[in-house]
Amino acid sequence: MIELIQPLGFELFERIVVPDEQAEIATQLRKWVGMGIDLICTTGGTGVSERDVTPEATREVIQQEIPGMAEAMRAGSLEKTPFAMISRAVTGVAGRTLIINLPGNPKGVRETLEILLPVIPHTVEVLRGKGDPHEGGKHTEGQVGSHKDEHHH
Amino acid sequence: MIELIQPLGFELFERIVVPDEQAEIATQLRKWVGMGIDLICTTGGTGVSERDVTPEATREVIQQEIPGMAEAMRAGSLEKTPFAMISRAVTGVAGRTLIINLPGNPKGVRETLEILLPVIPHTVEVLRGKGDPHEGGKHTEGQVGSHKDEHHH
Amino acid sequence: MIELIQPLGFELFERIVVPDEQAEIATQLRKWVGMGIDLICTTGGTGVSERDVTPEATREVIQQEIPGMAEAMRAGSLEKTPFAMISRAVTGVAGRTLIINLPGNPKGVRETLEILLPVIPHTVEVLRGKGDPHEGGKHTEGQVGSHKDEHHH
Repeated sequence: MIELIQPLGFELFERIVVPDEQAEIATQLRKWVGMGIDLICTTGGTGVSERDVTPEATREVIQQEIPGMAEAMRAGSLEKTPFAMISRAVTGVAGRTLIINLPGNPKGVRETLEILLPVIPHTVEVLRGKGDPHEGGKHTEGQVGSHKDEHHH
Repeated sequence: MIELIQPLGFELFERIVVPDEQAEIATQLRKWVGMGIDLICTTGGTGVSERDVTPEATREVIQQEIPGMAEAMRAGSLEKTPFAMISRAVTGVAGRTLIINLPGNPKGVRETLEILLPVIPHTVEVLRGKGDPHEGGKHTEGQVGSHKDEHHH
Repeated sequence: MIELIQPLGFELFERIVVPDEQAEIATQLRKWVGMGIDLICTTGGTGVSERDVTPEATREVIQQEIPGMAEAMRAGSLEKTPFAMISRAVTGVAGRTLIINLPGNPKGVRETLEILLPVIPHTVEVLRGKGDPHEGGKHTEGQVGSHKDEHHH
């Protein structure tokens, strides 16, 4: 994921693995949003099983949903696998932070993130222009991983 | 519809015609969800007229919406008719039951159901894995028909 | 916009520029809905900046969302520009009125409206059939412009 994001001028701020609990994910998201992080990418937890609560946690935190990003991710992914339609990924804005739910598997992360790359810098730029209690946006990226096995601490 | 679903290993549990009333549809959906039925397909009631309340009844019952299924149904259907975009069909999960709103006309049912067929067995399998007050999933299908003229009792 | 809509048999009822304030936009929408206007097209205010509140105002007013129209607008637009995915445009029904959020730029208006044109007359026809406190639908179009510079009073 980082290899795709860094060429756009972002640097990794933090990468954290959070248990599949809605409250814990939402708390971590809120913490990063409060810090004025530009972009948060979560991975995993977007399916239909009991543990899949990342969309709910995300929706709890965002003020504006950007449904078209999730639609574009699914539509692009659907050309490769019908299972793309089961992804409940949410994309939206909390404060000045863009939050994107990515799938759990690295191949899916790459495929869906590539769909969004052309619009991420502009979107982040617009969000930085928002009036804000904090001074100046931090050009960094936070990441919540909701599946333990996919991330290094 | 049954000819499409049965080859996947499902058997018809019940087929019921319900009036176009949100409360009655929701009650029937909840009854089947409470029984642990794997899959509920509704037909009709997804348009924009006053009687079209199936999406509202469905949303009232589900805990997780699966927007990508409805998006894929509409996008696939849109290749055949622009009227696909008026369908307000909802797809989601209530308890361990997958609920799918299908269109009212048999041709539309076939076309949209075919789009979902590749992912239905896997989705139902995942849902059966959910912890549950009931013992063991029933491999059967319920069906609410919201238009009287399209179903036999 | 009018050149595209008029050939369908609509006539312009009113064109008003409203500040980018959710309450003011919603008030104007409600006024036209209360008058039984057939179709309201808003322009602009669907992005992710602070001033972009048209989707929120629209969602506040509508009773039924028609997600497939917005999805089709974005999917069609996406073939021309990836920025289509940032549009948070909402389409739905309030009373007997169809409300469509269009983008702010004239080119985007044309492109997305063209996608919807094939289904607008039928949708409006169905909505006119709805029971209603008012007698007989007015075959006219209102328009909220949320960006001052794009409209003439």
